[in-house]
Parts: sequence; C-alpha cells; structure tokens
Amino acid sequence: MATDVRSSQRTPAVSNNAKTPSLMDSTLDRYKCVRDLSTQIAEPLSPEDCAMQTMPDVSPTRWHLAHTTWFFETFLLKERPGYHPFNTSFERLFNSYYNSVGQPFPRHRRGHLSRPGLDETLQYRQHVDNLVSELIDSDTLSDAQLSVIELGLNHEQQHQELMLTDIKHVLASNPLQPTYIADGVAPVDATNAPPLQWNSSDETIVEVGHDGNGFAYDNESPRHRELIHPHKIASRCVTNREYLDFIDDGGYRQPEHWLSMGWDAVNQHAWDAPLYWISQDGNWQQFTLSGVRPLHLDEPVCHVSYFEADAFARWSGKRLPTEFEWEHAASGNAIGDVFCDKLMQSGSAIHPRVTGDSDFLGNVWEWTASQYMPYPGYRPVAGALGEYNGKFMCNQFVLRGGSCATSSDHIRLSYRNFFPPDARWQFSGIRLAQ
Amino acid sequence: MATDVRSSQRTPAVSNNAKTPSLMDSTLDRYKCVRDLSTQIAEPLSPEDCAMQTMPDVSPTRWHLAHTTWFFETFLLKERPGYHPFNTSFERLFNSYYNSVGQPFPRHRRGHLSRPGLDETLQYRQHVDNLVSELIDSDTLSDAQLSVIELGLNHEQQHQELMLTDIKHVLASNPLQPTYIADGVAPVDATNAPPLQWNSSDETIVEVGHDGNGFAYDNESPRHRELIHPHKIASRCVTNREYLDFIDDGGYRQPEHWLSMGWDAVNQHAWDAPLYWISQDGNWQQFTLSGVRPLHLDEPVCHVSYFEADAFARWSGKRLPTEFEWEHAASGNAIGDVFCDKLMQSGSAIHPRVTGDSDFLGNVWEWTASQYMPYPGYRPVAGALGEYNGKFMCNQFVLRGGSCATSSDHIRLSYRNFFPPDARWQFSGIRLAQ
Amino acid sequence: MATDVRSSQRTPAVSNNAKTPSLMDSTLDRYKCVRDLSTQIAEPLSPEDCAMQTMPDVSPTRWHLAHTTWFFETFLLKERPGYHPFNTSFERLFNSYYNSVGQPFPRHRRGHLSRPGLDETLQYRQHVDNLVSELIDSDTLSDAQLSVIELGLNHEQQHQELMLTDIKHVLASNPLQPTYIADGVAPVDATNAPPLQWNSSDETIVEVGHDGNGFAYDNESPRHRELIHPHKIASRCVTNREYLDFIDDGGYRQPEHWLSMGWDAVNQHAWDAPLYWISQDGNWQQFTLSGVRPLHLDEPVCHVSYFEADAFARWSGKRLPTEFEWEHAASGNAIGDVFCDKLMQSGSAIHPRVTGDSDFLGNVWEWTASQYMPYPGYRPVAGALGEYNGKFMCNQFVLRGGSCATSSDHIRLSYRNFFPPDARWQFSGIRLAQ
Amino acid sequence: MATDVRSSQRTPAVSNNAKTPSLMDSTLDRYKCVRDLSTQIAEPLSPEDCAMQTMPDVSPTRWHLAHTTWFFETFLLKERPGYHPFNTSFERLFNSYYNSVGQPFPRHRRGHLSRPGLDETLQYRQHVDNLVSELIDSDTLSDAQLSVIELGLNHEQQHQELMLTDIKHVLASNPLQPTYIADGVAPVDATNAPPLQWNSSDETIVEVGHDGNGFAYDNESPRHRELIHPHKIASRCVTNREYLDFIDDGGYRQPEHWLSMGWDAVNQHAWDAPLYWISQDGNWQQFTLSGVRPLHLDEPVCHVSYFEADAFARWSGKRLPTEFEWEHAASGNAIGDVFCDKLMQSGSAIHPRVTGDSDFLGNVWEWTASQYMPYPGYRPVAGALGEYNGKFMCNQFVLRGGSCATSSDHIRLSYRNFFPPDARWQFSGIRLAQ
Repeated sequence: MATDVRSSQRTPAVSNNAKTPSLMDSTLDRYKCVRDLSTQIAEPLSPEDCAMQTMPDVSPTRWHLAHTTWFFETFLLKERPGYHPFNTSFERLFNSYYNSVGQPFPRHRRGHLSRPGLDETLQYRQHVDNLVSELIDSDTLSDAQLSVIELGLNHEQQHQELMLTDIKHVLASNPLQPTYIADGVAPVDATNAPPLQWNSSDETIVEVGHDGNGFAYDNESPRHRELIHPHKIASRCVTNREYLDFIDDGGYRQPEHWLSMGWDAVNQHAWDAPLYWISQDGNWQQFTLSGVRPLHLDEPVCHVSYFEADAFARWSGKRLPTEFEWEHAASGNAIGDVFCDKLMQSGSAIHPRVTGDSDFLGNVWEWTASQYMPYPGYRPVAGALGEYNGKFMCNQFVLRGGSCATSSDHIRLSYRNFFPPDARWQFSGIRLAQ
Repeated sequence: MATDVRSSQRTPAVSNNAKTPSLMDSTLDRYKCVRDLSTQIAEPLSPEDCAMQTMPDVSPTRWHLAHTTWFFETFLLKERPGYHPFNTSFERLFNSYYNSVGQPFPRHRRGHLSRPGLDETLQYRQHVDNLVSELIDSDTLSDAQLSVIELGLNHEQQHQELMLTDIKHVLASNPLQPTYIADGVAPVDATNAPPLQWNSSDETIVEVGHDGNGFAYDNESPRHRELIHPHKIASRCVTNREYLDFIDDGGYRQPEHWLSMGWDAVNQHAWDAPLYWISQDGNWQQFTLSGVRPLHLDEPVCHVSYFEADAFARWSGKRLPTEFEWEHAASGNAIGDVFCDKLMQSGSAIHPRVTGDSDFLGNVWEWTASQYMPYPGYRPVAGALGEYNGKFMCNQFVLRGGSCATSSDHIRLSYRNFFPPDARWQFSGIRLAQ
Repeated sequence: MATDVRSSQRTPAVSNNAKTPSLMDSTLDRYKCVRDLSTQIAEPLSPEDCAMQTMPDVSPTRWHLAHTTWFFETFLLKERPGYHPFNTSFERLFNSYYNSVGQPFPRHRRGHLSRPGLDETLQYRQHVDNLVSELIDSDTLSDAQLSVIELGLNHEQQHQELMLTDIKHVLASNPLQPTYIADGVAPVDATNAPPLQWNSSDETIVEVGHDGNGFAYDNESPRHRELIHPHKIASRCVTNREYLDFIDDGGYRQPEHWLSMGWDAVNQHAWDAPLYWISQDGNWQQFTLSGVRPLHLDEPVCHVSYFEADAFARWSGKRLPTEFEWEHAASGNAIGDVFCDKLMQSGSAIHPRVTGDSDFLGNVWEWTASQYMPYPGYRPVAGALGEYNGKFMCNQFVLRGGSCATSSDHIRLSYRNFFPPDARWQFSGIRLAQ
Repeated sequence: MATDVRSSQRTPAVSNNAKTPSLMDSTLDRYKCVRDLSTQIAEPLSPEDCAMQTMPDVSPTRWHLAHTTWFFETFLLKERPGYHPFNTSFERLFNSYYNSVGQPFPRHRRGHLSRPGLDETLQYRQHVDNLVSELIDSDTLSDAQLSVIELGLNHEQQHQELMLTDIKHVLASNPLQPTYIADGVAPVDATNAPPLQWNSSDETIVEVGHDGNGFAYDNESPRHRELIHPHKIASRCVTNREYLDFIDDGGYRQPEHWLSMGWDAVNQHAWDAPLYWISQDGNWQQFTLSGVRPLHLDEPVCHVSYFEADAFARWSGKRLPTEFEWEHAASGNAIGDVFCDKLMQSGSAIHPRVTGDSDFLGNVWEWTASQYMPYPGYRPVAGALGEYNGKFMCNQFVLRGGSCATSSDHIRLSYRNFFPPDARWQFSGIRLAQ
C-alpha cells in the first residue's frame, strides 16, 4: 500500500494556489467564511467574557480576534505602499511571538489590557477585512500573497479552536458556572461505544508528511519515509468508563504508572481526575461549554494531559502510538461530523460525542508518544513567518486528528498539533497501542 | 491648647445617630449621595475597563461596585427575616476578607471573573439600594442598623478612592495610555509652591484619636493621651522640584539613604522615580487620570512608597513625622478643595494641585513614621465587622490627611489610613519633620 | 520612682571607656573571654555541621566564626597603616550587610562556600586575635578604637546566640536528630511554675533607653521620656501547659485570633505548634540542643513567632506588653542564671528552665507589641557602622530580656532585640499584659 | 556493512555474566576497582567540599558516596536474611528517587544534612564493601544478584561522573576559585584541531541499540532497526574557536537562532557564553578543575546546553545529528584516552583535550537532536530497579559518547545519556550534521 496514494485521497479540499478567476471568488468566499466564524464564536460572549485571561496559557477572546487580524495587517497589508495602520500601537500589542516583527507585549499580561474594547476590536477586523477583500478582488495577488492569505486563514482556524478552549477555561473558573451555548440537542447521547479492537501492522516503511496537495504547515514537510515497527493500534479512543477504572484503581495515587515529571505534576496540582470533572456526592459531573452534566461513560475521555494519557497506558499494560503509527493507521478514514464548524452551524454543543470506530479525525485530539521534532530535511520558511512552528520543537508532544473544536477543513492526516505534556485545557484524549 | 476642642472643630458634619425624622431624611440623602458617586466614578469606563486586575493589590472596578453592595446586603439585609439574596453565590464572590462570613474568593483571582457583568452588577446595586432605601424610609432602624449603614457608607467611600487608584493603575498599564476624564480646566497650574517653613513644638501631652462626635473607625479609638517630644514639622509637603533634586543627586543609587528592605525594593523593582513618572528625552512626564502631562514642579510629589518617603527624608537630613506629631500640627486646619467629591462635581482632574500652606487635609496622603498599631485599650467591635481594621495591624505604616481621591466628608484629623511600606499606587506624598 | 536610678542599678558591669592600665588588662581579658566562647560553641561540631545553611535566615557556624573576625579586621585592623589582610577575598565573603564596605556576598548562598574550611577559619581568627591583642597591649588605643572593640565584642556575643539558634535549626533539620551537647544535668526539672499574677501600673511618665553607663547599641538611645498608660503585666511568662490549652482549643484553626498576615503564615507553613515540637502518638516531644525530650509543661513556651504570641494573647483576652511597659516592669530585676555563658560553663543544656517569678532577664526572649522604630532623636553613628541597626527599623517587632542563648554580660533592661513577626527559630516566648 | 558486526566490535570488555571461578575473581576485582575510584575522587576534598549543594541539580560528594553504597545495601544486602542495616535512617536519607523503596529525602535538601559526616560515610562504605566482598567470595551469587552488582557498579560509575561535575560547580561557585587537582601536565596543549570534514551517508537501515554482549542499561534495548535518512556528519566536535565566532557574531543576542524556550533561558539566566567561561579585560578565561586558565581555542567547546548547541548549529546553517546518525557514524571508533579513570591514574586534569578526528568516545558528551524516548518494545525491568531509566523519558535530550569525566569501561556506542535542554554543568559539547 503506497502512502502517497493514501494521503492524497484523504486531503481535504483546500484551495490550490493557481490564480484563476474562480480562485479569486473561492478565495474571497473562504476568507469571509473563516473570518466570520471567529466573530460567530465570540457572539454569545459579553465584553467581560472576552477580556479574561484565567491562566498564562489562556488568551482573552478579544485578543484572539485582534491578533488574527494583526496577522493579515502585518504580513499582507503593511507590505503595500501607502498603507496606514489602523493603530500603530497594535503592532506590538497584538504580536504574539514574532521577535522579527519587534518586542511582543508580554503574554501573561494580555488579560491586563482593557483597550481596545470589543467594539473597537470588531472595527479593526472590519477595517482589515475591507482592505483584504479589496485586495483579493483586485486580482493582483502574487503567489506569495496568496500563500500568506492561506496561512492567515489556517492560523485563524487554529485560534478559533483556542478561543473555544480558552473561553471554556474562563467560564469554568467562575463559581457561577456560566453556559456558553445552551445545547439545542439531547444532552446525553444514549449510544454505546463499540468494543475495542486491535489492528495489527507488520514492520513496514511508509511515507509520512504532507503530499503537497493543498495547504499544509511547514512542520508537516518534507514528506519522507519512516520505518514502522510491528505493533497493534486500538480501533477507538479510550472512554470515560475505561478511564474511571484507572481512577478507581488508585491510578492517581500510585507513582509506578507515572513519568517522574508527571508524578510531580500530579502532586503539585493535586490532580485526581481529568480537567473539568467535578465530583459530587460520589458521582462524576462534567463542566461543558453547554453547562454541567453527568459524565457520559461512553464518550472518549477528554481534557487529559500527556502525563495522564501515558500513565493510563502504562496502567493498561499498553503504550501510546507514535505519530507515524497513528498516521499509518488513520489513513483512509473519512472526515466525520464532530468538528467545530459543523457543530456551530447546527447549534450543537462543542463537546465530544460517543466514541466510534472510525474517529481518527475529529472528536478529541489524540496524544502520541512522539516528542515534537523536525522532519528530516525540515527548513522553516524564510523571514518572520519562519517563527511560526520551528522554534517550538522542544519539550512538546505531538497530538493528531483534531477535535470537536477544530474546523473540518482545517484538519488532515499529516497535521501535527503539539502541546507540553502537562497541558489539559485542550480537547485531548487517548488512543492506545501495544 | 486642648486637643479635644481642636478635634471637634475640624470634624466634618457627619450624621449623629439620634433617631429623628430629619435624620431619616438625611440618612437617605447621604445614602443616595454616596452610592451615586460610585456609579458616577464608573461611568466613564467601558465594561472591559471595569474588569481588569493589573496587580494583586488592584481590584476590578466592577468588583468594587459589587463588594460595597455586598456589604449592605450581608450586614444589613441578610439579618432581616425573609430576605432572599440576589444571588447566593455572591456571598462568597464578593466577600473581601471576612473569614467569619465564610471562605472569601481568592483576592488575586478577582480579575478572572467575567460574570456577573457590569449590567448585572448595576442591577445588583439597584436591588440592594431599593431595599435599603425602603428600610431607611420605614423609620424602624435600630441604632445598630444605623451604625452599619454609616459604616457601610464610609466603607464605600474608601472603595471609591480605591476605584480611582486602581483604575489609574489599569489605564497606565496599557501602552495606549487611555484617559479617564479629559480635564475641563487648565492642565498645569501656574502657581508656585510657598517657601517651606518649620513649625516648632515643645514637649507636650496631647489627646489624640477620635472625640466621639460623628462617625469614626474603631482604629481611631480610644481617644487617649500621647507624649509629644520637641520637634519641628514642615509647613507644606515636599514638591516634585525638591524630589527631583534627590533623584538628580543619585538618591535611587545610594544605599545609605535607604532602609534595608527599601533598598531591596529599589533593586528588585528597578525603581528610579515615583510611580507614573515617565522619562522622555531627558524630560519628566507624568501619567495622570487626565492623560500624560509634563511634570509640574510645584505640585506635591505623589505616588511614592514609604521607603521612598523615608529615603528622601534621610537624604534631606530630616525624618518623617509620627502620626501624633502630624495630628497635633494639623489641628485647626480647614478642609480644602482638593477632594474627590468636589473634583468630580466640577469635572476637574483627579490629581494633586500645587502644594499650599494649609494642605494637611486633601491633595496627597502623607506617610508618617508610625507603624500601624492599636491605640492603648483598643478593642475591635464584636462579630464579623471586628475584622474591619484590627487584623491588619502589622507591617503597615500610617498615612494621614486624605488625598485628591478622598471624599471631603470622609476625612478627619484622627483618620488613620495604612499601607505596606512598598505601596505606591495610592496618592501618597511626603511631609518632613526634624 | 526615677527610671535613671532604676536602670543604673541593673546595668551589667561593662567596661567603661576611660583609658587606664587596668582597663587595658580588663579589655584584653574580656576580648579573650568573649572570643574564646565562640570557638567553645563550635567545638562539639563537625566541619560539616559548621557548613550548613538550612534556611536563608540561618548562617553556617563557620561563617559566624569568620564574620565576627572580619568585623575586627575591617573596622580596627584595616585602619592601621601597613596592615596586610589575611586574604583579600574575605572582605567580600564575610561582609554581612555593610554596603559602605562593598558588595556583600549574597546571604542565601553562605551555605555554598566550602572554603575557607574550618581549620583555615580558625587560623584566620588566630591571626586577627594576635594582632588585636598586640594592639590592646600596646596601650595606644584611641577612644574610637576602644569603642570599636567594645562594639565588636557585643557584636560577637550576638552572633554567639545566632550560632546556637542556627545550629539548633541545622541539627533539627536532619532526620538523624543529632545532639549538640549531652546534658550533664537531669533532663526534666520537676519544679512547677509559680501561679500567674498581674502587676498593675497607673499612667506615668518614665525614662526609657540606655543611661550611658557602659556599652549600649545606638538603638537604645537617646534615653527619653515615654508616657505609660494604665495597664497590668504578667508576673511570669506563658508556660507550655498554658500554650497547650490554646492548641487544644483549636487556636491554630480559628482565624479570629490571628492577624491577617499571621493567618496567612499559619496556612502557608501548616503551623500547628511551636517550632521543634514533635507530635508522637498523641504526646508532645520537643527537639532540644540536648536531644529529643518529652515536653516539660512548666517551662516557658519557646520558639513561637510574634504571630503566635499575638494570637495566643488575643485568645486569652489579653495582649502583649509594649516595650516600654516591659522596661518599666522589668526594672529592679536581677540577672538570673539561665544564660548561655553560664550554661556552657556548667555543661548544661542550652534550653529554657522552668519559668520563675523574676525571669524578665534570660530564659526566653519576650515578644513585645512594639514595632521596631527609632527613639525620638535617634541618629545612627557616622560611617559604615551606622548600618549596624538603623536600616532595619521596618516591619520587625521588638523582643526584650535575652534568652538562655544570650550571654549574661550582653543583656540589659534597655536592650532591644528585633525580628520579623514570622521568625520562630530564636528562643522567643510570651509575656502577657492587659 | 552490518551493524550487528559493527557494534560487537566496539563493545568495551565488560564482565559477561556466566558464573565461573574466574568470574568470581574478576567480579571482586572489578567491584574493588570501581568502588575505590569513588573514594579516590573524594580524596582531594575537605569535609566541607563534600557537603555542598550549590544548585538543586548538584548533590554533595558525601551524598554520592553514601547513595552508591545504599544501592548495594538496598538491592543486594537487604534481601539477605538476618541482615542488619548500618543505620535504618539511611534507607530514606540516601534514596535518590525510588518511590517503590519509600519516600525519598527531598533532593533539594541534600545539602542540609551535616550527618552522617565524611568519616561515618566512609565507614558505611567499608561496612557494605566488606559484606558485598564476602558475598562475592562465597560463590553463591545468583544471576539476579550478579546483575544487581553489575548494575550497581555501572550506577556508581555514573555517580563518579556526577561527583566530578558537581564538585566543579561547587568550587566554581566560590570566589576563592579553589583547585581540585593541580594538573601534573602542561596546562595548555599546543596541538591544533584537525580541519573539519563531512562524512556522508545514504539512506540505510541500521541496527541500533545494545547487542547483548556485556552490560547495558535497559534504555539501550531492544536492539532494533532504524531508518537513517541521507545526511552528512562532522568528523570532529566544534572547537572553542568556532564557538567564539558565534559569540562574536552576536549569537547570544539574536533570537532567530534559538528555540523559543532557549531564548527564554538566555534571557532569564543572562547567558552570554558557555558555563565556566570568564571574560577578563576582553580575554576569555576558563574555570577548570585544575584552576583558571586561558581558553584553549582548539579544545572542543564544552559546558553548553542543548539550547546553545542547537542555536550554534542553526547559526551555522547546520543541525545536530540524531542519536541514530551518531551511533551509525561512531561505529568502529576505538576508545581513546580522555576518560576519567585514565586521567585520574596519571594525575592529569579532568578536562577535555584538543579535539581530534576520532573522538566520538570520550572528551565531551555530544548533544543529539533526539529527545529521550523508549526504543520500540522497551520494557523497564520489574520492581524498584525499573525506576532506573524509564520514568525519565520526557523532555530530555540524548547525549552520546561519554566525556573526560566518564570511565573508559563505562561507555559504549549504544550508551544513551540524557539531560534537560538547559543543563550545562556536564562536560557537554557539539557535533554538527547536515
């Protein structure tokens, strides 16, 4: 089985960069569509909701709205002669981490900025959207500019996921336990998770990484060959029911299952369950973006750190898959429905659904055993945009597959997400291997 | 000269507790007047401005609005049979530090609460104001209830000053340097400060503390006798001009002027000027609630810590006065105009004015050399309200006289304010003694 | 009753500065006697014991031995033409906090210095002792030099107490619970504490501070008048038995007895008893310099912080005395036996004895309610030695009376010791007032 | 070229576990030889030198001496019926991190233990050595026991390296800059480093990991196949001369060369050169275990963190090799002379020598681009000894090849050392790849 065939099949339809009239239209459509989703995500929130930074990893919603706009202004509009910035202070205020662009405003103080307010931030978006739309309409975009737009839209989609995970943290930090969106559908799905099966693979050399069709981040390249060792991989993710066994068996109190740093984290933060689980009179509840609910035992366990995923795997006598084992196994799986854009459209809860047999893509991110490293021959792009991915390749673990907070046209089999091993506020779950 | 005569002269007209029909009216008037000033202070602010906590000492404006309301609800309304709390979660959310009332929400996380929003907070105020007004109108208030109302109003006035100093910190933390209120008057007063004179006092025994006429905090009692040693005290506060000499002479670089803890603070925080001073091309600017202005050399130096006040005094070959020397010297001074309520009324900048000869009251708080300790025979009141003052009598220094952010009917000669020696965000200045 | 009479009676015989042949002899004797006690204190210790710094407040014994020597070298020998320092690096290494002498080696890293070792340190002492002895013998000492010697000896006696309290902390930090000196006397004294009595005082003006006979620190001057308010003071210190009642009554779990900062300390450090108390199967043991022993209920409670002393007093419905009330009450009390020099001489445990009726001096330091502030008219001496006391007058509380770790010829009624309110490793106890 | 052939050639002669009379002899010889080297390393040190912990990563020499002994006592002697521990408290005191054995004494407080002193620690060693020697002599050792001895000796050799790197940190932290051993040979070798060459490799599958001949840690197994991508690897390590170019070119001031976490480390610790480099009047000196010396430009750069190694590589337009590229390239290289045991024997400085063409083994550890992860199929051994390696496989980078502080019979091509990316106190250098 040739991996290049495999991967081209599954690539989501992303605009290809050839300049044709219809491309202009589709670029404009896509630009509007992606940009609109950001404001749609912010819509249920008050100005105060959009201002909070409840931990250093969290950014205020308003900051996300401005920073994604800053991206287009900085890398697309500022290049153009005669461009007048909307506000010269924004260059520094909304720079996330691009040292080449100047000294960014300190990350942990993003929640200390009351201005620009939500209204002015939305005006800033409008200002930039107008100019970018004009630019696209003008049919004069170079390939490089088209690439920046495509990168900017993907960048925005990443921030859309962060907006959702960050606002979940903000709301959960408030004893009033506010609801983001009241779920229009039944709160608890009665379906059961299918039985767990193990899919075997012999030693083989596969091609991994992006095949060049459509957009991809630089960290997915170059496409290259990897040796896969014989292994088995689980047919579905670990459920809450299975994870509860680990808890009930004393998993959080026994150091032998844990990495040394993980055991330190357990003790330092007094972890005894995934993030957002609430123990009430012996029953487990869960804080969700649609309010507090009883824990659904057949949903995939979610909001666990790498440390917890790894400890659960050791307790099970198993391990986590490498990112290449995952990519190999996931090939041929279709895009499902549990994605942010689709859930928002139907007014459904942004929350994982009962785990299924072919849920490699969507629902919950899956921690892999792979530390986040460059692919052989990897080179970051030149200039400031080279800071996008490469400088974070250290002490982070790769997650694959996207989640219920990811947009369906943002994910692909070669997509490499990454977080430090103690991060829990993403929609992150577990798939086992052995 | 008898101090008891002295102090009764200067006491601001505060409601005396005898219950008469006119008292009801005046209590209601005063209640409305004080409560209205809080919302008036918040009026120029956006919902986001009201949500920020830029350092642990700062509380969000919205929190101040809610907490002062909580005070009346908790200590007045909850006592009444059949009272339904506006929101039962508010009991904990807006408890500042009263352990007797329950576990307060952690202070440093006040800026993490997006709900209740500004609108709901104002509704909460309205709800409590309606019920308290009814209660006052009903003419059934016991002396104890009247005392709680009086304490609640003074408590609110304290928080009004904090709202102003906190919002100054919030706005100054933003690179956009927003303005709180554009000043309706000339930004820089051309008047000069009068020459410094030294008023002598022989050894004498004076009565200090509150004389019992009108409201006072428990920490001003009992009125008692203190021995004053021979000394001289300055006729006016130290000006920016004089403080600049200290800076220019290397005051911030020479450990010999500083307390050991003060020198540590200078180095840890890299202090080289008072808070809100901005050095620009060799000229000093000042961030004020009405924008950035050139430093006015004849204004009293402001936003200095006790450490800086003490170091300046040592560098001058002088010292700070004790709180009793200050109270002795200040007697007979009339209330001036540089107070929050008066400035707000005229739309003037909340900012110190050029120092004058009789500015013991208003303009800037004056650090004294006295650590904050109980008066002989001091007893906190019984119950939760006993936590108001007494438990803070440790490692703080007394400030006297009120500032441009204090209300004129909140200050008196016996008033004891207190802050830790490194606090700089209050409107605090320096008067010398020797 | 005139305080000046009072205080001259109690002043320990300290060398008076007039230069006479016998003075030379007595100065030399005293110099040798004090210097020898330091090495005697270090004698039971291994080189490793002398090297430990188990918390930032603790200094290694070896550092104390060197620093006290550095004092004579720096302020006496270096002044002399032609003096060659023992080691030029020692100037910085053993400077404690004299900024005028240069940048001191960071305090918290004193336990990181393995060199000079114990042997070389003792050689350093010998080198300096030889030269100082010659100098004293030469009969050419100026008054200023005599003052430096006297200050240096008192300085060394302070460090002798610190050596004992620091080594107690070092040994107690070791699970092996090593013994400093095996006590030659019966471990537990069977005597009972006398019943508590209250001595009354009317309002009076007293003279306090040092009367000028013999040595005193600058912080005991100027002698001046203080107004004492009517009060009662306890005839003896609080016993372990009485303090246990406080513990058993839940004193450490009830915030209402505590200063706000004190309650924070209780929670942060999980305090539930004085330092060195060990709960074992429901019985209280105590780590002492002579090993672990059952708690003696009639001994004065010891190793409590100001926060604990204050909380105990509030729980008792009492308060701590001011330093002037203490000095007034202590007048006329003779020096007792529970002092470091006497205990060392008889090979007895350095540990408090059963509290008695006239134990103002010795046994345990007594926390007062007075924050440590300068006396009216206080001026530090000029030059580097002016850093001795004055720069610490902030956020510390005064203790009076000396302890079992103080030398009997180092203490006097006017002596002002001072520590931050959370310090517990000194031999500090409680006397009540009301 | 078959890797299995390759690796068997280079394996250092390590005792094979078959039980024969001569094995007994050789085991005893090896036991004595390794154990003696530890005391030999401690010999030039004073008791105080052996007591210091100058940063949390550093352990006192005395602790190393005791902990390595504890290893044999715990895993070999305690198993035997009737064994009486030397001191029951040592079980906890000298447990490094084995949670299965009980709660270890906190690592950061190892420098707070003055007892047992150096003498008692050496007695502890003697006690255990006698019993272990008897046991070996008895010729009754099971295979499992032989494995524990072999593991214990390798464990001790690791700690010998740590003793040297830790004592270097201790001595360098002292302004007196003490010397560990005066070097008996010429301080600066006049040889030049050979020109850098690039050795190419095509894509190939190699066998990596330990081949089963002789001792190896569990983390070197299982031996397995890895796909090597086409690459070039440098013939020798980076020299001080080359690294100086990076410094002089502003390498430490330009964020574009650094990982994001690396740039944070540069700023937080104010790094501007490798550890132990000292800038003096524009010239670079180096603190070594044999005193301060001018920087030798042809020696390999040493005491750099992974962050620095990676930044240097990016600045060079190169990268670091993966651990498999390294293992592939290093095959066939002979053991050199720059190893701890050989240098100690000849009384030479424990310091890198001028870099040579075949210095894969010894001199300096070489950072690889590989995060430290388990090999496919890796399983830690059962029981407490399973904690040896596996639980640290997170956020660490692999180093290969050993250093001048490693024993020559402790290293092998498959040996995987690992440290966090900010560690600099090991003898760690750089080899480039591209």
